[in-house]
Amino acid sequence: MLTMQEALLALNTYWSKQGCLVAQPMNSEVGAGTLNPATFLRVQGPEPWRVAYVEPSVRPDDSRYGENPNRLQTHTQFQVILKPEPGNAQELYLGSLKALGIDIEAHDVRFVEDNWASPALGAWGLGWEVWLDGLEITQFTYFQQAGGLTLDPVSVEITYGLERILMALQGVSHFKDIVYAPGVTYGEIFGQAEYEMSRYYLDDADVDTNRELFEAYAKEARRLLDLRLPVPAYSYVLKCSHSFNVLDARGAISTTERARSFARMRGLAHEVAELWAERRAELNHPLGTGTGVTETAQDTAEPTPAPEPDGRRTLAFEIGFEELPPAEAERIVDSVREAVETGLGATRLGHGALHVAATPRRVVVTLDAVEPAEPDGEQSVRGPRVSAAYDAEGAPTPALLGFARSQNADPAELTRAEFGGREHVVLTRLVRGRSAQAVLAEVLPAVVSGLRAEKNMRWNASGLSFSRPIRWILALLGDEVVPFEVSGLVAGRTTRVHRTAAQPVVEVAVADGYMELLARHGIVADTAARRAVVQAGAVQLAAQVGGVVDLEGNKALVDEITNLVEFPTPILGTFDRKYLDLPDQILTTVMRKHQRYLPVLDAEGRLLPYFITVANGACDQDVVRRGNEAVLRARYEDAAFFWRADLDTPLEAMQERLQLLTFEDKLGSMADRAQRIASTATEFASQLPIGARDLITLEKAAGLVKFDLGSQMVTELSSLAGVMAEVYARQAGQPAEVAQALFETELPRHSADRLPESTAGALLALADRADLLSGLLPLGGAPTGGSDPFGLRRAALGVVNILRAHPALSPLTVSGMLRIAAERQPLDVSVESLDEAKQFVVRRFEQQLLEAGHAVQDIRAVLAQADRPVRAAARLAELEAAHGTEPLALATAAVQRVLRIVPAGTEPTPDPTLFSATAENDLHQIVVKLRTILGDHPDLTAFLQQSRPLVEAVDAFFEGVMVMDQDLTVRANRLALLATVQQLVTPILSWTELK
Amino acid sequence: MLTMQEALLALNTYWSKQGCLVAQPMNSEVGAGTLNPATFLRVQGPEPWRVAYVEPSVRPDDSRYGENPNRLQTHTQFQVILKPEPGNAQELYLGSLKALGIDIEAHDVRFVEDNWASPALGAWGLGWEVWLDGLEITQFTYFQQAGGLTLDPVSVEITYGLERILMALQGVSHFKDIVYAPGVTYGEIFGQAEYEMSRYYLDDADVDTNRELFEAYAKEARRLLDLRLPVPAYSYVLKCSHSFNVLDARGAISTTERARSFARMRGLAHEVAELWAERRAELNHPLGTGTGVTETAQDTAEPTPAPEPDGRRTLAFEIGFEELPPAEAERIVDSVREAVETGLGATRLGHGALHVAATPRRVVVTLDAVEPAEPDGEQSVRGPRVSAAYDAEGAPTPALLGFARSQNADPAELTRAEFGGREHVVLTRLVRGRSAQAVLAEVLPAVVSGLRAEKNMRWNASGLSFSRPIRWILALLGDEVVPFEVSGLVAGRTTRVHRTAAQPVVEVAVADGYMELLARHGIVADTAARRAVVQAGAVQLAAQVGGVVDLEGNKALVDEITNLVEFPTPILGTFDRKYLDLPDQILTTVMRKHQRYLPVLDAEGRLLPYFITVANGACDQDVVRRGNEAVLRARYEDAAFFWRADLDTPLEAMQERLQLLTFEDKLGSMADRAQRIASTATEFASQLPIGARDLITLEKAAGLVKFDLGSQMVTELSSLAGVMAEVYARQAGQPAEVAQALFETELPRHSADRLPESTAGALLALADRADLLSGLLPLGGAPTGGSDPFGLRRAALGVVNILRAHPALSPLTVSGMLRIAAERQPLDVSVESLDEAKQFVVRRFEQQLLEAGHAVQDIRAVLAQADRPVRAAARLAELEAAHGTEPLALATAAVQRVLRIVPAGTEPTPDPTLFSATAENDLHQIVVKLRTILGDHPDLTAFLQQSRPLVEAVDAFFEGVMVMDQDLTVRANRLALLATVQQLVTPILSWTELK
Repeated sequence: MLTMQEALLALNTYWSKQGCLVAQPMNSEVGAGTLNPATFLRVQGPEPWRVAYVEPSVRPDDSRYGENPNRLQTHTQFQVILKPEPGNAQELYLGSLKALGIDIEAHDVRFVEDNWASPALGAWGLGWEVWLDGLEITQFTYFQQAGGLTLDPVSVEITYGLERILMALQGVSHFKDIVYAPGVTYGEIFGQAEYEMSRYYLDDADVDTNRELFEAYAKEARRLLDLRLPVPAYSYVLKCSHSFNVLDARGAISTTERARSFARMRGLAHEVAELWAERRAELNHPLGTGTGVTETAQDTAEPTPAPEPDGRRTLAFEIGFEELPPAEAERIVDSVREAVETGLGATRLGHGALHVAATPRRVVVTLDAVEPAEPDGEQSVRGPRVSAAYDAEGAPTPALLGFARSQNADPAELTRAEFGGREHVVLTRLVRGRSAQAVLAEVLPAVVSGLRAEKNMRWNASGLSFSRPIRWILALLGDEVVPFEVSGLVAGRTTRVHRTAAQPVVEVAVADGYMELLARHGIVADTAARRAVVQAGAVQLAAQVGGVVDLEGNKALVDEITNLVEFPTPILGTFDRKYLDLPDQILTTVMRKHQRYLPVLDAEGRLLPYFITVANGACDQDVVRRGNEAVLRARYEDAAFFWRADLDTPLEAMQERLQLLTFEDKLGSMADRAQRIASTATEFASQLPIGARDLITLEKAAGLVKFDLGSQMVTELSSLAGVMAEVYARQAGQPAEVAQALFETELPRHSADRLPESTAGALLALADRADLLSGLLPLGGAPTGGSDPFGLRRAALGVVNILRAHPALSPLTVSGMLRIAAERQPLDVSVESLDEAKQFVVRRFEQQLLEAGHAVQDIRAVLAQADRPVRAAARLAELEAAHGTEPLALATAAVQRVLRIVPAGTEPTPDPTLFSATAENDLHQIVVKLRTILGDHPDLTAFLQQSRPLVEAVDAFFEGVMVMDQDLTVRANRLALLATVQQLVTPILSWTELK
Repeated sequence: MLTMQEALLALNTYWSKQGCLVAQPMNSEVGAGTLNPATFLRVQGPEPWRVAYVEPSVRPDDSRYGENPNRLQTHTQFQVILKPEPGNAQELYLGSLKALGIDIEAHDVRFVEDNWASPALGAWGLGWEVWLDGLEITQFTYFQQAGGLTLDPVSVEITYGLERILMALQGVSHFKDIVYAPGVTYGEIFGQAEYEMSRYYLDDADVDTNRELFEAYAKEARRLLDLRLPVPAYSYVLKCSHSFNVLDARGAISTTERARSFARMRGLAHEVAELWAERRAELNHPLGTGTGVTETAQDTAEPTPAPEPDGRRTLAFEIGFEELPPAEAERIVDSVREAVETGLGATRLGHGALHVAATPRRVVVTLDAVEPAEPDGEQSVRGPRVSAAYDAEGAPTPALLGFARSQNADPAELTRAEFGGREHVVLTRLVRGRSAQAVLAEVLPAVVSGLRAEKNMRWNASGLSFSRPIRWILALLGDEVVPFEVSGLVAGRTTRVHRTAAQPVVEVAVADGYMELLARHGIVADTAARRAVVQAGAVQLAAQVGGVVDLEGNKALVDEITNLVEFPTPILGTFDRKYLDLPDQILTTVMRKHQRYLPVLDAEGRLLPYFITVANGACDQDVVRRGNEAVLRARYEDAAFFWRADLDTPLEAMQERLQLLTFEDKLGSMADRAQRIASTATEFASQLPIGARDLITLEKAAGLVKFDLGSQMVTELSSLAGVMAEVYARQAGQPAEVAQALFETELPRHSADRLPESTAGALLALADRADLLSGLLPLGGAPTGGSDPFGLRRAALGVVNILRAHPALSPLTVSGMLRIAAERQPLDVSVESLDEAKQFVVRRFEQQLLEAGHAVQDIRAVLAQADRPVRAAARLAELEAAHGTEPLALATAAVQRVLRIVPAGTEPTPDPTLFSATAENDLHQIVVKLRTILGDHPDLTAFLQQSRPLVEAVDAFFEGVMVMDQDLTVRANRLALLATVQQLVTPILSWTELK
């Protein structure tokens, strides 16, 4: 059996053989290997760098006294940096797994999208989690930025989680049972430290002292930056970060303090990075600036010269990637089809059907019946006008001769043609169609270089940019390579199949039957076909145990799975029946969200103790099954532990724990916040007609709101906030509707989430968000740029969406709700602040409407109503329905005419005794009448139905009456009359916004 | 070529195969691998532990901006702990050198005594530096105490200095040139960090911040101890230690602060160790308490039964060790001879000549002509008295029968004999002499278990205790093993020769010729013979280059070398002639003190560029020569660097640097101290008759005193303080006597050191020590127990010795000098403090006299004079000369009679008019007369010469006069008369102390 110690030695030895420097762990507590200067500093600048090292990574927050089988305050990372990226980092990585004795042909090793970002470091990159039979064992990242600086060249960062790997390899279910060295376990060596350091981080660290330390470290870092010493400055940034983490684990960091501290650390890290880069440049880059050999070129053969075309042939064109995120694998089919169509459309090359398919590792284009070449055609060049081309004798003028010379033509070749009614001399020439090879060699590279994803990255100096590195291009027209090259990638006849195939690199003889060739290697390139394999496999496997799979309910998951594999191998796994005692939400959250497993149900829709995972490739299914089962068991064991602990805890005790969770310095604890939410929601209810039953539910739920934040389950799995509130409330005997309201308080949790259905739930959810907005916005918590640390954009949108979903709540206005919440804050919220908060919500609403495709002028026309989103939305619908109708066009013209002339502030109080014209009287009568008919809150449709007399009266008024009379009293009275029109129409729409 | 990275991997792999856990470096800055909890905590308690790890060790004080070729603020240690000690740790270690590719047969690998202690850790152990061709590459220690706790079992600690090893193996002369990994050097990787961290530690660390950090860490450690969490507490002790080191490197730690901080850290470390041990016991020692297999037993054969003796035979008895310190190898010859003689003396075994010889690895006893057995003898047992043994009829009584039965004798065997005048029944039995085997099997084990050194240690559970581990016993009588066993070590016929011999373990057939057998293996066991080999070799090698070796002047060094090797191989090495420009003191200090090389001189006594080293064993002399030359070159290059830098610096500039060196918080900088010394010395001079030339010298030297502490050379090689002052002063054109005085200011530097010869030097040296004592003693700097952090004992003794060596300075008293120095201190020194300081000096003087063998009562009798040590010493000599003479005896009796009766405080003012007896008058006359003759400061000899009349007068007085007259006036007057006697004799001696 491989011991942990042997594993570390094996990795050191393996990577050292790959040219890595073996560095030492940082001699200051760090949360991850990335923080070691051997990564953070060395990825900056042009110097090449390859390093590997062990990094015991300290995460105070993960302290569990050594009791949790999977979480440790110090876990062991093994970190590798390859700079510049070598072009075959995935293959090198797989080699390291073999060096660990892992049979990668038997196991299911997958690269699952996982983009990494560290706000504290100003760092991000794109890459994957590597899964071994469903267990995340490594993080693999193409590092794009660090310290806020764009990295050039890009580094590959590989971070192994040693405890997880060893637990899997040794088949133990608690980290303490890992055999660390012959005869001694991990627990025997590190158990006491785990317990004691957990005690320190969770219970006993002195908060004041650690705050002092944080300040002292930050101050020292600041000074050292000013002294231009990035190395010691950075060591103090790391110490800062650790003391912050200690404070955080002690629950001493409020939301705003977190944001402030992060900003401070990020700022320091940025300056360190910048200064380091500068200093290295001053030192003339001691390690050189060579970019090393990149191994991107697939085929170094000379491009084959285009042969003479001799018949219709098939094109096979494939772009190969490192694993794309599922969403990109889906998106790329359409974008590549469009790019190919556009490219070909600009040529005259004839061809048959176009087919595009994609997997995570490739997009495959096949084009049938490509003509040997474009047809020949004619090209005309316009010369001088005929009148200027020949003199009176019909002899060529110098103008004509100049034209002919410039075109290398004989004047005798020229003909005549009319342009814009004038006759010109014209040169018409035969254009030979280009060969298919030549056309494609122009079209296809553009497809490659035009690839764009939602999130793009660079990986080497090629200038290409895409979601993940592009590693090869196959382009065969019949049996010939289409000769082209894109940024160093040369098109060839080589493709790559599954990495653990006997022959992972395959030479392709001919384009025809390319999809079948892939299929023979297990690769189902077509997405629909692959989905069918996944679905059919899942259904069959479920049926073997008398179960079914809810394909409809798991549509998005099935799509994701389909795009996570290209060689789908569905496998049925099982778990211990005892875990079925846990709530379904927990079981399925873990299966679907964490593991991408399909749950198996019985005929009544109850969970069965089975799951379906879809491996990638021809693995040893028993090995992979056992591996996945162990992963699920560990996760369920974890959950069961919290579940039992929570069930032993009265709701009140959980609630009390909220007092220990700081929400925000100035806004108190989470318990304070819960109380405010309860009081705010109750006040909302008092302003509404609401049934007694709902009132009782609200009251009970308000008394318990957010209690589950004090549960162990939610502490560990924060995404279950609300879900656990419902479950635990039911378990504690609370009425179902109270439990539901507690769940719904958290809705919506993200943009596509459900909304509260019950009134009590809606009110609590509104109160929750009103508390957040009215408290944090005045404290400067507004989002800036891409960063929204408190999720206030989501909160604002939640307010809008809940109100829109609950028309019964329409008596509540956004501003009113914010005011009620603000009154309950422990700080004074000014009128200006409140108004800003309301505007913040309105802007989110506006943005939502824009994104829904409404026209900007229409939105602006109704936005004055946004304090009541339901009304604004309804008005918008009316407006859109009325567009193109005569009543709206006429009314708009008339109203705008009125609005243009009435000065701001004009009182709508005309004196009818001063009216001298009939038109004045008529208009006055119409306005009075309409006001009666339409009431205080007229809607647009009603108004338009009644608007014709008004339009006519306005028109008659402007026709017959001189508003700007020389008698100022008359003039004022006429403007006052028009102001009544303004008064009437303004509540309906902001008419001036309409074009 | 072995890269540094490969070396680390090789060590990890090698030790991992020896059952070591491979641990990670500490994630907090530590100064050495010993501080890692994997050592400091794990060596505590009974649990077995084997660990190896790399430890980048941070020593801010060693910061040199990366410029010094051998010093780094962070150097790389490789640390190994073997607990319990395995019995063959040296062999395992040599195996690790082979794993590094070192040909240990070609090189000279030596174990050179080096005892390790860390006051900050409360830790110590005995062991060696390991030398590779003269280069210290490893520290090897049997760990005895840590955290102030005695360790049981003992751990072996092996600490490699990687940079040094790699520099030697790669043949580079600057750490930056080490090839760290293929294609990349140490400097390229760590150069910038060395520079920047040096900047931080030496120039830029914020002192206040680091003091705050120290306090915060110490406070947190304190709290965590109270919470019984030794692991986090210890991490804060380490942080404390690092911030202390930073402050120290910044020159911000004064002498007293250092002592205080050390005491604080030591206290915390002690509590940590104690608490850790307690907690491990509470956890029931998770790693077990097995002591592992110790491999001490040499020979597991059954002890051979003693055969019948059959003639005189030779005994060869050898005790084998791991390398003894040279002083112990010397001492052991006499102590073992005495033990053997004493042991044999208690038996009747006849034998011939006894010979004892020793090397660092063995003591060899040969005993010629051992008789086969003790001669037979008789033993008599006394029975009952005859009168009680037979009844009236002459028949045996029950008493007699009982005696016979108890002795297993027939009553008829009994005879009679007289005891104390009474006749008893007696049983006389023949006692057979024991065989020589039996006798020796009793005597020899006692020799082994009775071994004691100056400093002893334990190494395993055997209960044995000695300077270094005892590893084997050979005991052969003729061709037979003497069968015994001592604490698990079984005597046998096996010895060990040089470790790299083809056959390092040798079976010995017969005792005869054992010394010759050793000699055939290169081992010169006899010390005198070995010294002769060393001397002859040195002389011959020196002659080869036309040089000589000063054997007389290097007597102690030759002795040390003789006892550092057992297979002496003198080798001549050379160094670059250019280094001869350096002062001889530097060159020879490095050669003799650091390297144990003999310098080679020309006929005029000038240094030649050669040295002689004495390797141990049949190495490849060229390899060893080159290695040693490289070591010396590195050391000289270092020194030359400082030398050049210092020569470029005016003396005044060096002097100015003293302002940056804190001497003591309250006592100011080193510059302040130098000024006080100058002023104090000048004041001393003003109280003396002193020549003008001396005065001018004093004045000039005083103006420069201690300037060399500001030189780079002394900063690096502090033992050259004073030496460099003289050299640099001469170089700067100062007169020779000024330069000499500056040197002599530092004398004596240790107990056996020279004393100042010049008056100016003596005065400055006295002023130096008076400043130290009068400043630090009032601040609580007095030594306690074994610890004298400020060297005040040495300073006090220096005062005494300088005064004794300079009778011309006798007008100066200890108390007077202290007062003068105290007046110049920046703090008030109370009269009590001054008196305590004087008493401190007096006690050291008393101790010195005791150690010199003077009788305690004699010392006490003269100690009242100790304020003038010259006088006290002279008086002591007089007293010792007078012992046994009549005048002293009579005078003592008479004086003591007087002193016994005179009450304290009696005024010596008798009124002669009140005298009523002749004896009174006579006595009075004698006293008056003597006072005139003897003067104010009578010496003992003069007094005794004149004492007879006084003695007679006193005797007559006591005979004829009743002191305690009933007339109180008369009584008082008679006591007053006796008080005049007291007044006369008290300044001479403290008579009451004499027995």
